[in-house]
Amino acid sequence: MIQMDTSNARSFLPADFLTSRLDALEGARQKLETGSGLGGDFTGWVHLPRDYDKEEFARIQAAAQRIRQDSQALVVIGIGGSYLGARAVVELVNSPNFNLTHKNGLEIYFAGNGLSTDAMLEVMELIRDKDWSINVISKSGTTTEPAVAFRIFKNLLEEKYGKEEARKRIYATTDAKRGALKGLADAEGYEEFVVPDAIGGRYSVLTAVGLLPIACAGVDIAALMEGARESMEALAVPGASNPAWEYAAARHALYTAGKKIEILVGYEPSFRFFGEWWKQLFGESEGKEGKGLFPASVEFTADLHSMGQYIQEGERLMLETVVRFQKSSGSIAIPHDPDNVDGLNFLAGKDLSFVAEQAMRGTVLAHVDGGVPNMMVTAPGRDAKSVGALIYFCEYVCGLTGYLMEINPFNQPGVEAYKNNMYALLGKPGYEDKKAELEARLGG
Amino acid sequence: MIQMDTSNARSFLPADFLTSRLDALEGARQKLETGSGLGGDFTGWVHLPRDYDKEEFARIQAAAQRIRQDSQALVVIGIGGSYLGARAVVELVNSPNFNLTHKNGLEIYFAGNGLSTDAMLEVMELIRDKDWSINVISKSGTTTEPAVAFRIFKNLLEEKYGKEEARKRIYATTDAKRGALKGLADAEGYEEFVVPDAIGGRYSVLTAVGLLPIACAGVDIAALMEGARESMEALAVPGASNPAWEYAAARHALYTAGKKIEILVGYEPSFRFFGEWWKQLFGESEGKEGKGLFPASVEFTADLHSMGQYIQEGERLMLETVVRFQKSSGSIAIPHDPDNVDGLNFLAGKDLSFVAEQAMRGTVLAHVDGGVPNMMVTAPGRDAKSVGALIYFCEYVCGLTGYLMEINPFNQPGVEAYKNNMYALLGKPGYEDKKAELEARLGG
Repeated sequence: MIQMDTSNARSFLPADFLTSRLDALEGARQKLETGSGLGGDFTGWVHLPRDYDKEEFARIQAAAQRIRQDSQALVVIGIGGSYLGARAVVELVNSPNFNLTHKNGLEIYFAGNGLSTDAMLEVMELIRDKDWSINVISKSGTTTEPAVAFRIFKNLLEEKYGKEEARKRIYATTDAKRGALKGLADAEGYEEFVVPDAIGGRYSVLTAVGLLPIACAGVDIAALMEGARESMEALAVPGASNPAWEYAAARHALYTAGKKIEILVGYEPSFRFFGEWWKQLFGESEGKEGKGLFPASVEFTADLHSMGQYIQEGERLMLETVVRFQKSSGSIAIPHDPDNVDGLNFLAGKDLSFVAEQAMRGTVLAHVDGGVPNMMVTAPGRDAKSVGALIYFCEYVCGLTGYLMEINPFNQPGVEAYKNNMYALLGKPGYEDKKAELEARLGG
Repeated sequence: MIQMDTSNARSFLPADFLTSRLDALEGARQKLETGSGLGGDFTGWVHLPRDYDKEEFARIQAAAQRIRQDSQALVVIGIGGSYLGARAVVELVNSPNFNLTHKNGLEIYFAGNGLSTDAMLEVMELIRDKDWSINVISKSGTTTEPAVAFRIFKNLLEEKYGKEEARKRIYATTDAKRGALKGLADAEGYEEFVVPDAIGGRYSVLTAVGLLPIACAGVDIAALMEGARESMEALAVPGASNPAWEYAAARHALYTAGKKIEILVGYEPSFRFFGEWWKQLFGESEGKEGKGLFPASVEFTADLHSMGQYIQEGERLMLETVVRFQKSSGSIAIPHDPDNVDGLNFLAGKDLSFVAEQAMRGTVLAHVDGGVPNMMVTAPGRDAKSVGALIYFCEYVCGLTGYLMEINPFNQPGVEAYKNNMYALLGKPGYEDKKAELEARLGG
């Protein structure tokens, strides 16, 4: 379902970039398959599209239906992997303006993914006169950003509906057995969904973490899982013709050859947050021990008029990966202009998507000529099934390259550093010494 | 008005990073001041906040008032600098959800900045039942993306209002004397505003290019210009205490020392498109002759849970520049929870902005400890005046560092490469040989 084309990176690669890595890729495949590699306890996503909990899946669909009936808005509280995957899918399948177009069938507001006062006040204002519910997503229940947001929105919900009714409007996606949010959900009787132990945040979009908000947006989550399952089966087959192997080998070879930045290129505004999800997936997986491709994303053709100059002629550190969707949902014919003021009558009657396709093909060659290896991932469309296939493809490639780079693609030890400093500066009990030390460094 | 703090980059810098560059900075200052450096014909932005055309400015304000009276929506057609500056300011001052919150007073849709069929169909659908106008922004009138969009939206407008009334609803920002759009605007009697010759696209936000859409969004453009003027005056003063000199010297010294990526950090969702504008400004100015810092942007604390791991522990290629706004528009007190389920009662009663501030301070130190030099730009707020000051500050720093890097900070020769390939593949008359060559390379 997902096709890979590395032909426009070949001039930057040794001829044996793939064949020389077949053994290493087979080793990586086995590690993913059996969970025997570094971080192997977090490879639950590998067989998820086949092994997911069908009973919970049905409850997710039922809960989404209930929320869509009794609510005009859903506040989704989560950060990192508990935020980006759902937003990526909803924007890509529906629209980045999903709350404006009403394509979702209900409004969705993502909260608790930052600490902006004005952004939170805006959500509070936008839901004020609507019926709404909460989906709070946190494995522990103690991560600062979502925990603070949950305190605030839970209070608002209780003010609006009373404690009893509010309980029925809170859906908690959390640890199956332990943690602050699990304890609260049990005590209060929230409907609960599971953040699995064996799947890290950035690989969790196809668990309840992503699926409940995505289903609430009216996206067909059965099709999403079906697409992921097709990818899973296709990519489990070892060998040089496996598109994930080809991409992983090319990425690794280009990195080994000195490229330091991978730019993910989309041609649709609706792809922007898929790019953000992808940046977490690859950046958090690879960016450790002083290694990894720095992940960036652009929206062409818009950014050809901003980042285009740098990509064409700046430092030669980059590779590009274009994600191409074979078809648009609609079509627009370019009108004829009797005066041909802009000189574009040679395009009259042509479809806009034809222009976009030629822009993309021309850009690939321009950037190759400028010294930027180009790779292309093609998905059939932006429907749920294609997007499910694309998600799994990215996850699998990320697992493979992580092992080629000889790092643990499933941990994120560096995320604690800012948290610990923040706790100290906030005056969290137990951090007194660290607070004094940090305040001294900050001259405050 | 804009403060610069490089103290958290000092451990990565030689002690004389600034003093050793004072002569070069004085040279750069004079080049900007007199237009005597590389690309000096495009330094019209330097004195713009003082010398701008006051008659045209009044016409912009009047046109905005008229549009806000007779229209519920404005379609702004432009790409690159004719798009990013206006969107950046409207999002930062009003909200990234400006069409949802109705903070603008009218809806604004940016079109012609890409070739997505689905994005254009969505705008067509969203304006269908509204009264609307067009602001088409293009110096030449022949750039493919905006020209195609203008054909389409002009047709729609004429279908809705008839040719006569449609003419009164089209506002053309274009060359003062020549070009396809200028000719059409003269012939049709559109109200016209000027894209000045001496100011390139990425420096044009404070000309009619940015000001008309920004004024239509209800933002006080007089305050915006006043802020820019204050920055202009402050930054014209030579010497080591000039904040733009300090930032330019530190950026250049870090680049010289081997840093390759500058990450612009914001803590507000409303800052996202300011980051995009900044990426064009710096990337297009510096990214040439194999030089330049690769510009990236992140939204913290959200992206501390996605890009944070890479920044903390990935390849050590980065520097960070945090843009801090001294105050939020509103405030939110963190509620007390009798059960203290999440353990956050030590924050109860505290303002959310206090938490955000400590997160920012803690993150700076965490990243410094991880080997990432941090610099901080502080603006008073996100009001129009502060944003005007911030815009000019960024432009001025960009001009200075461009000359320190010994490149022309005002051209963009690399942007033509994709355009020429696209024209050829589209079958533009005169490109037949190139088309054959490219199609052969593409194997199609």
